[in-house]
Amino acid sequence: MSGSSVPAGEGAAPRVVIVGAGFGGLSAARALRRAPARVSVVDRSNHHLFQPLLYQVATAALSPADIAVPIRQVLRRQANTEVLMAEVVGLDLAGRRVLTSQGALPYDFLILATGAHYNYFGHDGWERHAPGLKSIADATSIRQRILIAFEKAEVESDPARRRDLLTFVIVGGGPTGVELAGAIGELAHTALASDFRHISARMARILLLEAGPRILAAFPEDLARGARKALGRLGVEVRCGAVVQGVDEDGVVVGGERIGSKTVVWAAGVAASPLGRWLGAEMDRAGRVKVGSDLRVPGHPEVFVIGDLASCAGENGAPLPGVAPVAMQQGRYVARVIATKVRGAQVDHAPEPFHYRDQGNLATVGRKFAIADFGRIRLSGFLGWVVWLVVHIYKLIGFRNRLLVLIQWAWAYMTFQKGARLITTLQPEVGSPGAGAAPGTGPAPPAG
Amino acid sequence: MSGSSVPAGEGAAPRVVIVGAGFGGLSAARALRRAPARVSVVDRSNHHLFQPLLYQVATAALSPADIAVPIRQVLRRQANTEVLMAEVVGLDLAGRRVLTSQGALPYDFLILATGAHYNYFGHDGWERHAPGLKSIADATSIRQRILIAFEKAEVESDPARRRDLLTFVIVGGGPTGVELAGAIGELAHTALASDFRHISARMARILLLEAGPRILAAFPEDLARGARKALGRLGVEVRCGAVVQGVDEDGVVVGGERIGSKTVVWAAGVAASPLGRWLGAEMDRAGRVKVGSDLRVPGHPEVFVIGDLASCAGENGAPLPGVAPVAMQQGRYVARVIATKVRGAQVDHAPEPFHYRDQGNLATVGRKFAIADFGRIRLSGFLGWVVWLVVHIYKLIGFRNRLLVLIQWAWAYMTFQKGARLITTLQPEVGSPGAGAAPGTGPAPPAG
Repeated sequence: MSGSSVPAGEGAAPRVVIVGAGFGGLSAARALRRAPARVSVVDRSNHHLFQPLLYQVATAALSPADIAVPIRQVLRRQANTEVLMAEVVGLDLAGRRVLTSQGALPYDFLILATGAHYNYFGHDGWERHAPGLKSIADATSIRQRILIAFEKAEVESDPARRRDLLTFVIVGGGPTGVELAGAIGELAHTALASDFRHISARMARILLLEAGPRILAAFPEDLARGARKALGRLGVEVRCGAVVQGVDEDGVVVGGERIGSKTVVWAAGVAASPLGRWLGAEMDRAGRVKVGSDLRVPGHPEVFVIGDLASCAGENGAPLPGVAPVAMQQGRYVARVIATKVRGAQVDHAPEPFHYRDQGNLATVGRKFAIADFGRIRLSGFLGWVVWLVVHIYKLIGFRNRLLVLIQWAWAYMTFQKGARLITTLQPEVGSPGAGAAPGTGPAPPAG
Repeated sequence: MSGSSVPAGEGAAPRVVIVGAGFGGLSAARALRRAPARVSVVDRSNHHLFQPLLYQVATAALSPADIAVPIRQVLRRQANTEVLMAEVVGLDLAGRRVLTSQGALPYDFLILATGAHYNYFGHDGWERHAPGLKSIADATSIRQRILIAFEKAEVESDPARRRDLLTFVIVGGGPTGVELAGAIGELAHTALASDFRHISARMARILLLEAGPRILAAFPEDLARGARKALGRLGVEVRCGAVVQGVDEDGVVVGGERIGSKTVVWAAGVAASPLGRWLGAEMDRAGRVKVGSDLRVPGHPEVFVIGDLASCAGENGAPLPGVAPVAMQQGRYVARVIATKVRGAQVDHAPEPFHYRDQGNLATVGRKFAIADFGRIRLSGFLGWVVWLVVHIYKLIGFRNRLLVLIQWAWAYMTFQKGARLITTLQPEVGSPGAGAAPGTGPAPPAG
């Protein structure tokens, strides 16, 4: 279709285009609901994802729909806003247009919030064997890998191959890596403990590899030490100073040693989405766009970059962390700046610089341990977990999700069960000749 | 691995192999929990599926995990039973072995319960364009097709193409087709009603095509007529005597007329799983194995066939319908027969013939209308829907599922929302250049 035919709302109000409906983009869109502007939210996915809980989908504790809401549903009552499910394929800064798979979107103000993914440090070939955890598709495919590894181990007679099937390697000792490792440990030692006849899920070996001197570098040392102990109790082996030198279908190579594993998950490094490059602006080593204190792109006062895509210095001069609260506060800040302008303020009037209010930092290990860092106040253990639970329930967008997730957690907590242990498609790796067969064909039950 | 290394339980007790963990196979397995036998349940999937509600996953009302439970979880406490996730690739009747992708399984008694899929009446090429609804993978891919059709229509400027995108065709006027059509009508007229800016979801045209003289042939005529009226209220157009002559990516051809549609779902006909052929036994036109009144395969007293795979005459001589209650009762019956034998009864002692206790027949149209046929008692409308709801909640295996599904339904009922409206992978059909990109790469937000 032609670009002009992509609707950008009626009337003559200024057009604001937001690329990305993550925490940053969605916060900006919602904060613009009363602004005299025509807002377009572009995302290649139809849903906003509550990413901090994605690891729970990957470990079968939650269903995708529990942590995702359709973007249209969130913004349906916002008359000045439209949602476009499309892939952004380029930027026309001179012509002030965003080029998408569905045509071009003209803008007066542009907010880029396309986030980041994991960084394979130049070894993009590793991604096939060690997927990252960013989308629901990632989570369900990692869930599939983990569950199938146990299924294959159950029928594997060769001890070495069985050991590799029951070895799970997580690369990256940040919050995601720690939470994922803890959840896999829990899955192996509780939910699956009595499900198999020929293996004990307790035979599972879970390795968390961190290149740095310690895990959870963003947390105070004492809290990180507590988290490491808690991981140990769940059977997770933590290795620091472990730089990955190779990844293939048979495992990883660390410090010259090969570790055989059929399930490797990547949670290391940060690489901003390539969108930044099209800006031609200065970027940091992770590909984040260096923005001013007003989150504008130098030379383009009408273009803002927020969230994981932005490299923005905090009070102490260090760049702000790539966490949801930063993205959300930046989204609301940018929305305020734009709303002020479209309400007729001088375009060259310089807004107050963005100030990040740190609300603290949380990470959980399994179902009864978490660490919480609120500056002076530090919590650890069960109390920390309760705080973590309350905060996450509260932050989940949409009452329905909160309620359902709470019930699932309560149930999982009482029964040690995991509710979403589904292998939805039989992968060729299962060594099944019928794997490629069309659904319903071949010797499978209706339930197949 | 070698066949012998496939574990079939310890000890010298007779070996019972059950192929398929649908309603029939799982009922048989549970009924054998106290029998002095070593039971192996083989399924190519890791979960038992509550198929009567699969259409609700396809229409975004429920998540896959709400209607599926891991087979291992259901049977975990059953010490004499093991679960094998494998594809059956052949039968060695002389050697009494089931050949699977994971090796051979020797048996003393064999229960075949691999069910049926839809029948494309020789036009298997149609399946690509008109998928059936049998597995969770089917359901999520149909959900994806439906949601993407609305997304594409929202940005489509050509009226004809937009009309085709908003035309949904369901082939087959049985319970599945009727329930699916009703659910799509509801989705279009409630959940999506106010989500789009450039189309009205009410523009959606939903066509239910039935080759026979009327829909719901298994129900009394007056109930079927009521269901048809209810479908009309949801905007579903029912055409009877409509034989499909062609299906392609652009729609269907019916009675010489081409109906443009980008979303065609197949719910017509029954074709038993090919497993039956390997028996070399007599089959009916649908490929179901003709079994005696004791559900044994003629000439093979140690082989039983149950559920949709079996063609078994009822009291009136007509073959029993392919519904869950038949399969479950047959599963329990066969388990009783086998348990009696392994407890030492004469092998040539002929058991009581199988007798099906008809518990009635239910079908629902949308969220407040259903028909219920209990012989003398017939219900229709909201009361029928309440009965339908109670019956289905009750029958869902596992308390957790029951509770969650009830809450989701209550929520959907109060808010008209659909909770699982997720497009988890961007399909090439969306015409997105980035569709094939690896997760996390390309200009997409973390939530993408």
